[in-house]
Formats: sequence, C-alpha cells, structure tokens
Amino acid sequence: MGRVTVRRPVLRLSADGRRRRQEALAAEEPLELRVDGRALAVIMRTPGHDVELAHGFLLAGGVIGAAGDVSTARYCDGVDDQGRNTYNVLDLALAPGVERDSSYGPCGTAAPDAVRRGTRFSPAGDGVRVAPATLTTLPDLLRERQRVFASTGGLHAAGLFTAAGEPLVVREDVGRHNAVDKVVGWALVEGRVPLSGTVLTVSGRVSFELVRKAAMAGIPVLAAVSAPSSLAVEQAEEQGVTLVGFLRGSSMNVYTGAERITGS
Amino acid sequence: MGRVTVRRPVLRLSADGRRRRQEALAAEEPLELRVDGRALAVIMRTPGHDVELAHGFLLAGGVIGAAGDVSTARYCDGVDDQGRNTYNVLDLALAPGVERDSSYGPCGTAAPDAVRRGTRFSPAGDGVRVAPATLTTLPDLLRERQRVFASTGGLHAAGLFTAAGEPLVVREDVGRHNAVDKVVGWALVEGRVPLSGTVLTVSGRVSFELVRKAAMAGIPVLAAVSAPSSLAVEQAEEQGVTLVGFLRGSSMNVYTGAERITGS
Repeated sequence: MGRVTVRRPVLRLSADGRRRRQEALAAEEPLELRVDGRALAVIMRTPGHDVELAHGFLLAGGVIGAAGDVSTARYCDGVDDQGRNTYNVLDLALAPGVERDSSYGPCGTAAPDAVRRGTRFSPAGDGVRVAPATLTTLPDLLRERQRVFASTGGLHAAGLFTAAGEPLVVREDVGRHNAVDKVVGWALVEGRVPLSGTVLTVSGRVSFELVRKAAMAGIPVLAAVSAPSSLAVEQAEEQGVTLVGFLRGSSMNVYTGAERITGS
Repeated sequence: MGRVTVRRPVLRLSADGRRRRQEALAAEEPLELRVDGRALAVIMRTPGHDVELAHGFLLAGGVIGAAGDVSTARYCDGVDDQGRNTYNVLDLALAPGVERDSSYGPCGTAAPDAVRRGTRFSPAGDGVRVAPATLTTLPDLLRERQRVFASTGGLHAAGLFTAAGEPLVVREDVGRHNAVDKVVGWALVEGRVPLSGTVLTVSGRVSFELVRKAAMAGIPVLAAVSAPSSLAVEQAEEQGVTLVGFLRGSSMNVYTGAERITGS
C-alpha cells in the first residue's frame, strides 16, 4: 500500500508568476470497518496502520479492551474497477464472548453521557508526575517524527510518550481522531493498554472526543499544541485526565489535573 | 444563549513563572438533531446559529433543498439538572411531501459514492470567474470577521463571498464541517441556494466532506488557507468545483477548475 501521499498536478500562482507542477497531497480514502461481517462505520482516513486504527476505534467505542478481543483482522471484498483489492474494507472478527455492543453508533461519536458507562481503564487514580521541561520538548519531538506533514501540510499528528519524554509511537492522519485511534490501537496490539504513566501529545486542538479517547485508553496526560474546547476541559476534569493546551515554546496552559505537573 | 465562549480557570506556566487566571474557551456542546421527532444525529458544535446548522446539515445530506422543505424548527425536551432548557435538542419538522431519506446515516458522513446521486445543485456548469487578486483578500476578511477566534484560538471559520470578494456571511465553530453547514444553512434560509457565482473560504484544511458540502449547495469555488486531501481534489474534479488551497499572502495553489481563475 503505502498510499500515504498522492501526487497531483497543481497550478501555482505567486509573485513569481504561474506554473504547473506536481505536489504531494495527504491521502484520504474511506475505510469501511466491519465487525463480524457487519458494517460498523466508514472512516475517512489516511491509508496505513488500518488495523491499529480499527483497534483504537473499537477501544474508544467500548467494544474491545484488549488485543485478544479481536481474533482476526483482514481486508476483504473492496475492489476497484480493475478488480484489485482497494484495501479499503477491513473486517474484524471478535473473539468468542466479546459483546458487539458499543457506546456509540456508526458515526464514531458518542453523546457526552456515553463515556461514563464505557470507561474501563480510568486514568483518575494515575499518580504519574511530569515535568514542564519535559512537556515543552514534546511538540518538537512530534514534528521531527511527522514524516508526511512536511511534504503535504495536510496531516494531524498524535504521539505517545513516557512521562520522561521518550517517544513510544507517532502516527499521522488527515483526521486528528484517526491519528489518536492509530496510536491507541498500536498500544492495544502491543499489550500496553491501559496506558498508565504516559503522555499523549496532539498537533492541533482538543475536542471532547479526543479527551474521551484518551480516557478510554487510561492515558493520564493529554498535551496539545492548540486550544481545547469547553467540553474537552469539562470531560478531562470528570475523567481525571490532566489537560494541557497551547504547549508552545516554554509556555503552556494547564486546564485540569495540575497535581500531575511537577512544581504545581 | 450566547454560549459561544466559556470562561475557565487555567494555570499558566511560562518563562514569567506560574499564575492562575481565567481564560475564554470555545464552547463545545452536543446538539441532538431530530427530524419529525426522530433522532437523526448528535453534532458536537459551538452553540449559536443552530437552526442554520441544521438546515446546512440536512442540505448536505440530500434531505432538503429549499427553506420551504422545513416547516418548523424548535428546541425541545433537552433539560439540565435544574429543569432548564439546554437548547441542545432541536427538532425540525419537514414539509409534507419531503422524503426523510438521506444520503448518509446518523454519522453525518457519507461514503464517497453517495454524493453523486445526491447532488441536486451541481456547480459544474457555473461560468463564474474570480480574480486571483480577489481571492488573496479573502483570508484577511475572514479573520477580521472571526470574532471569537481571537479570544479562544479554538474555532474554525467559514465565509461565503461574492466573486467580487464581498462578504455575505461568516460563521465559526469548533468543527470545521459545522462552520460550513452554518454558512450553507444561512444561505438556504435566505433563499440563496443554489449558491451560483459564490466563493466559500475556510480557515483550515479541506477534506472530501467539505468539498461535498460545497457541491451540494452549488458553490463553484472553494478556497482554503491550508492543504486539501487527495480525495478532496478528486471530488472537486468530479463535482466541477474549483478548489484552491494554501491561499496565503499573494500565493495559492489551484488544484481543479482553473478555468474559473482569471488569467489562467
């Protein structure tokens, strides 16, 4: 596969005049996610790490809680005009005994109440402490590992770090929710969930949904380069997630859970 | 209502030390959208212009095509702990004869094939022409009218302009899709759809879904400050939308429909 970028012709207009050239775009394709043969969701995503994406998506939805809850994952059925596999239909079979009931519908979003009943790995009791000087290194570490962004400008990144600032994994996607699902799905497949003692860093803004995804994976600290929404902060407070925003240079805003930030 | 921002206490860490202060956050709340009493979607949005948002959402889904297709819109049922209306449940009644069938499900996203059968206001034949010098003024015009962003840093903006660069409407939202739905919904309520001869400008990146929303409203030109995805470009080509990206300073990339850009 490796269809993470797509080259397209573009007409560039600038002070230097007009010229046609080829540019790389961030790939976006629909992934139809099926569970036991039944369509669950269509996710507009950047191809790659689809199995991790599916694991993260199902964890966030409360469907699975461990890698063993998925018995098989295979690309199926989707074919293009020439009959080639599109790798855009992924079917996951759940292990015996795993209920298919999820805390959200085919949309991948939940009503704000749904997360409470669904959280099986609450980060609330996580006693990890992180130094501000560690947090301020994370955006650069994230950028260094964002391989595609530089060429397309079109991707969100999410990275998982230890409390000492060691990178564990970085993923990119046209959808910021997907980038987080890929990170969490990686951790699930690696047997690392709940993600106690870790810091999730994201390249953009923080919505309710991103906080929810962190909480569902037991991540105690979520640090973002940009602003959180009001409901993101409320949700972080309720779920016991430390929420940091506007992480730029040596500055940051701590919205919730400041007891995990050393010196606070 | 006017809950577009929410003030929250924050611990600010910077080179100047630590201090607690109040900061404004972009409000995010769930809007449950019902059609004829049946739940259709939960949209995480910034409160305000909800009726326009609902109209734009339903137009993009192929449910309605004119303001008259909605007979009434009213906030209902949703109450908080104190029994006060939350203004987070909106019920739209469709006019007699309007089918409730939509081209997408409760998620607000569609499979890429769905848009083709759903487009009733194709912009493909729109002969409008726009000058590059006009396009380069739009990001600043958008920013000037973004009232909330300056205080929160947390909102996406979408603005509709004439081909001469006159602003028609600007809307902000935590979700960029919502900002576009609010703009298109405004136009629908004003009886301006199909939006022939207009330019839609957005503050961020362009996904498949944004191109789809523009095409569904008959908008011939979509100009964005940031990058489009591969599928956004493909979709713009198929739907006859002129797609401009990286609109910054005096430069821009024209991905599709360059015949509408003067001098091209």
